Amino acid sequence: MLENITVAQLKSMTLKELLALCEEAREVITATVLKNGGHLSSNLGTVELTVALYYVFDFPKDKLVFDVGHQCYTHKLLSGRYDRFETLRQKGGISGFPKREESEYDCYNVGHAGTSVSAALGIGKARDIKGEDYNVIALVGDGSFNNGLIYEAFNSLRLINTNILLILNDNGMSIAPTVGSMHEYLEILCETAERKEKNDRHAKIFERFGFRYDGVYDGNNLEKMIEKLSEIKESLKRESVILHVVTKKGKGYSFCEDNPEATHGISHGNNVETEYSEILGKTLINLAEKDNRIVAVTAAMTSSLGLSEFFEKYPNRSMDVGICEEHATILCASMAAEGLKPYYAVYSTFLQRSFDEIVIDICSQNLPVTLCIDRAGISGADGETHQGVFDLSFLSMIPNLTIAVPKDVKEFEEFLRFSVDYSAPLAIRYPRSGKKLLGEHSAVILGKWETLVRGDGKYAVIACGERMLDLAMSAAEKLGQSGVKISVINARFVKPLDEDLLNSLSEKHIITLEDNMLLGGFGALLDVYFSESEKIIKNFAYTDKFISQGSVSELMDELEVNSEALVDYVIKNENR
Amino acid sequence: MLENITVAQLKSMTLKELLALCEEAREVITATVLKNGGHLSSNLGTVELTVALYYVFDFPKDKLVFDVGHQCYTHKLLSGRYDRFETLRQKGGISGFPKREESEYDCYNVGHAGTSVSAALGIGKARDIKGEDYNVIALVGDGSFNNGLIYEAFNSLRLINTNILLILNDNGMSIAPTVGSMHEYLEILCETAERKEKNDRHAKIFERFGFRYDGVYDGNNLEKMIEKLSEIKESLKRESVILHVVTKKGKGYSFCEDNPEATHGISHGNNVETEYSEILGKTLINLAEKDNRIVAVTAAMTSSLGLSEFFEKYPNRSMDVGICEEHATILCASMAAEGLKPYYAVYSTFLQRSFDEIVIDICSQNLPVTLCIDRAGISGADGETHQGVFDLSFLSMIPNLTIAVPKDVKEFEEFLRFSVDYSAPLAIRYPRSGKKLLGEHSAVILGKWETLVRGDGKYAVIACGERMLDLAMSAAEKLGQSGVKISVINARFVKPLDEDLLNSLSEKHIITLEDNMLLGGFGALLDVYFSESEKIIKNFAYTDKFISQGSVSELMDELEVNSEALVDYVIKNENR
Repeated sequence: MLENITVAQLKSMTLKELLALCEEAREVITATVLKNGGHLSSNLGTVELTVALYYVFDFPKDKLVFDVGHQCYTHKLLSGRYDRFETLRQKGGISGFPKREESEYDCYNVGHAGTSVSAALGIGKARDIKGEDYNVIALVGDGSFNNGLIYEAFNSLRLINTNILLILNDNGMSIAPTVGSMHEYLEILCETAERKEKNDRHAKIFERFGFRYDGVYDGNNLEKMIEKLSEIKESLKRESVILHVVTKKGKGYSFCEDNPEATHGISHGNNVETEYSEILGKTLINLAEKDNRIVAVTAAMTSSLGLSEFFEKYPNRSMDVGICEEHATILCASMAAEGLKPYYAVYSTFLQRSFDEIVIDICSQNLPVTLCIDRAGISGADGETHQGVFDLSFLSMIPNLTIAVPKDVKEFEEFLRFSVDYSAPLAIRYPRSGKKLLGEHSAVILGKWETLVRGDGKYAVIACGERMLDLAMSAAEKLGQSGVKISVINARFVKPLDEDLLNSLSEKHIITLEDNMLLGGFGALLDVYFSESEKIIKNFAYTDKFISQGSVSELMDELEVNSEALVDYVIKNENR
Repeated sequence: MLENITVAQLKSMTLKELLALCEEAREVITATVLKNGGHLSSNLGTVELTVALYYVFDFPKDKLVFDVGHQCYTHKLLSGRYDRFETLRQKGGISGFPKREESEYDCYNVGHAGTSVSAALGIGKARDIKGEDYNVIALVGDGSFNNGLIYEAFNSLRLINTNILLILNDNGMSIAPTVGSMHEYLEILCETAERKEKNDRHAKIFERFGFRYDGVYDGNNLEKMIEKLSEIKESLKRESVILHVVTKKGKGYSFCEDNPEATHGISHGNNVETEYSEILGKTLINLAEKDNRIVAVTAAMTSSLGLSEFFEKYPNRSMDVGICEEHATILCASMAAEGLKPYYAVYSTFLQRSFDEIVIDICSQNLPVTLCIDRAGISGADGETHQGVFDLSFLSMIPNLTIAVPKDVKEFEEFLRFSVDYSAPLAIRYPRSGKKLLGEHSAVILGKWETLVRGDGKYAVIACGERMLDLAMSAAEKLGQSGVKISVINARFVKPLDEDLLNSLSEKHIITLEDNMLLGGFGALLDVYFSESEKIIKNFAYTDKFISQGSVSELMDELEVNSEALVDYVIKNENR
């Protein structure tokens, strides 16, 4: 039924047919995600809600803005992308997130939390200014409701003076269970849902901001959703409405229903590699035993960052503040100001939210916060909004910040040990998982690099991070077979640079390799360092374009940051 | 009385003496700010409140965290800085903001809005973890209450499980009058203050988050403040409290009371220069007359950005959303997604808050938002937290973004005209004011630079922005007198680079000049561009340190980015 379905056909279906459509969507989503990876339980929870939205509203004329985008699969299936759905998250395939380039039904790209209400207000305002007539709907999970952006948008609803429908999809979860007072408040609203008057009284917060509040309803009840949305649609001409619905994360797939956190994101492929997050968790526990200054802070992803056990063991020294990356950063800075040793663990892409606080709160005060930056470098199938390829650039420009990039999980552990007594801001960036250990392991000394291969050839390859060193080592081996002996240097610290080592390379050309954008990155630091000399430096890094979805190796090949490109370059220029 | 006053002395004073102390503080602040520049009306409003805090609490054992820091002058006078207060905001003098390096009474540095509650929670939590015993107080203006960070901190109060006192200093103003629903809500609390029961009912929002709310009181009534703070101090062992006080911005100085926005910040020195903000306002009005897609967005500083008249003329196409920089950025992106042409005007330093939204919402969607970045480069007396010296670095690393730096106010106007039909993200950065027009003015062509001086010498100086070109032109003149003929090129676009022009300079050494950090900045882009060649490039830019307060020229001299340094370099290397 789902195949080739048009919006017009959907609108003419009976309830029974629509329910069958829901089941089919659920099957397609489950089968596809189990094959390709992706967001499963969040998408299974919103099937009925999405079908009801399509039944009641007129997309793409009406605009549906997602928050984060972990709930958009049914929407993709209903808007002409069934045929290509099997390419979900694959290179060249359809995105796991809303994407304007992909369909006119995707009106606004998202990926990071809390943006949908602001975007819906902007779209609504644009509609009013242009004198057009359509509905704007923001679909927001309760996890995003912790984010300050939601509040900023709420605060300006009356100012902006436009009408939107905000559907609060309350499943009690971010990736982890939702935390905080707003969550407790939403629970009170749920508990009082049956007692209209009491519920109304509690709902006053939303009314303060200018919304009419309507809730709580079962978002998995298709008939009820159609009824409610039809009713609200009529009122959107004159008011903004919050529709509070409760859905079951993982709905219809009992394994997901029972394990919503574990099945929030499904990884594709086998995992024989060591997760850096595992090392983070174990090492921090170990260090915290001996040092009671150590505290850990996360923003709604404790488990995927490897810190669940730490949180259990040290509840008083660990804080998951929900999707509040800026607040988390300041908490760390202020605890450091009072003599504690805070570790803020976060994915590279979400650290972007804390840029100003890293500059002002952590670095301008020179406070000993350690940023543990997971999923750095190309992260793969999530695409543009989730690649961790900017951090070396936006961090290396900040004074007082030391940046470390371990060559493997063991060196990561050494960096963590090093961090304990390091009395200034420190960032350690690493990918999700590591393949193997690389060479000897010596104690970390601030700003000192490590020469892994000494070659008498013309080129010294300076690389940071496991992926890049792996690639350099394999190039060295291949080149060695042709008699070309390159040196390979592990740039454990991106900042400060090992100037002694760099100066000792005066006879050599330099090649840099990094899992980051070219501009502002590690290679660029070397280009600046040598700007006044005639040094020839070749930078392998990602060119100045957003990086779409695909596997890590597919994307690195496409961007020509791989062993073959390195070998080719050296051979071509060996006689230069 | 204020001279050499100790905290112990203050605590033994009678009310009458304390009131006299307040008047003395007010006089010192007014006299100093009128001489040195600084924040006047906000500081005059909080004299009594600060004296009461010192009377009741035990600083520096107790911790006082400011928000933004525009209210800290009395605190500085009371904590041993009376003697040096005349050096306020001067090079080497005391800072206009709280600064840990300056005094143990300054427990946390601030400058950007909304951070104080997070910081107070972190400090409170650190106290609890260390098993220590002191009080933590956050002093927040109502303008900051719009910022999402406040909400994120509120949301986690119970989670973090520590007790703080939050003093909400409500003067109805950010720099501009406070806007938004939270402001309206605070007004309701003020209006119902006399009717306890009604006020209690309205105060429920704060109680949801775990605070006891106590308000509204006259923050300029010293006796009342002492009474209230003494009472609350006792309860801080068992709960967190919001104390809501109303103060009069500019209190005690009638000119300020009547002109709170104009006297929020007092500029030091005479102003014969043209303000870029004036050009922005005039030109946008002009353009908007012919193009109804144009909308303007600000975050609480409409007037200082030059947009008051635009806002009056086009109320439906202009939005001041309060201190909500992230939200403002997404509003622009989403309106652009619907075909409008949004201009987001903002100070360089506050744009840092929008970094993630510039990357994800504007640039990854390639939407035609124009960022009008005022106070770029060294901004002077406000010091570390307000220098606009990072923007070229954090912007140039973002794909799809074009960056323009006008050489003078007339070229700024041309860039604004250029922007209207430019269909991709554009950033235009400029200092507060300009001295003069520089050479001819030709139409702007994307990515094309302009040669201002053609010299047959060895050096081509490529500079961006008025300050740097001014410096280059005067160096060219001086060098010309010694027979050294340098070329001077106006790099109107920092991105994209004018590759044709760069390639035409193959016989020359290059010198870059920019009002920005060295790392990741304009010069670094050239270093990367020429990395594989033997090109010699000298970058004049700011070294990798935070830049303290001082006048623009003092700081540029200290950082050795000035005409003399440029002349010296060329002469020294002319025969290289």
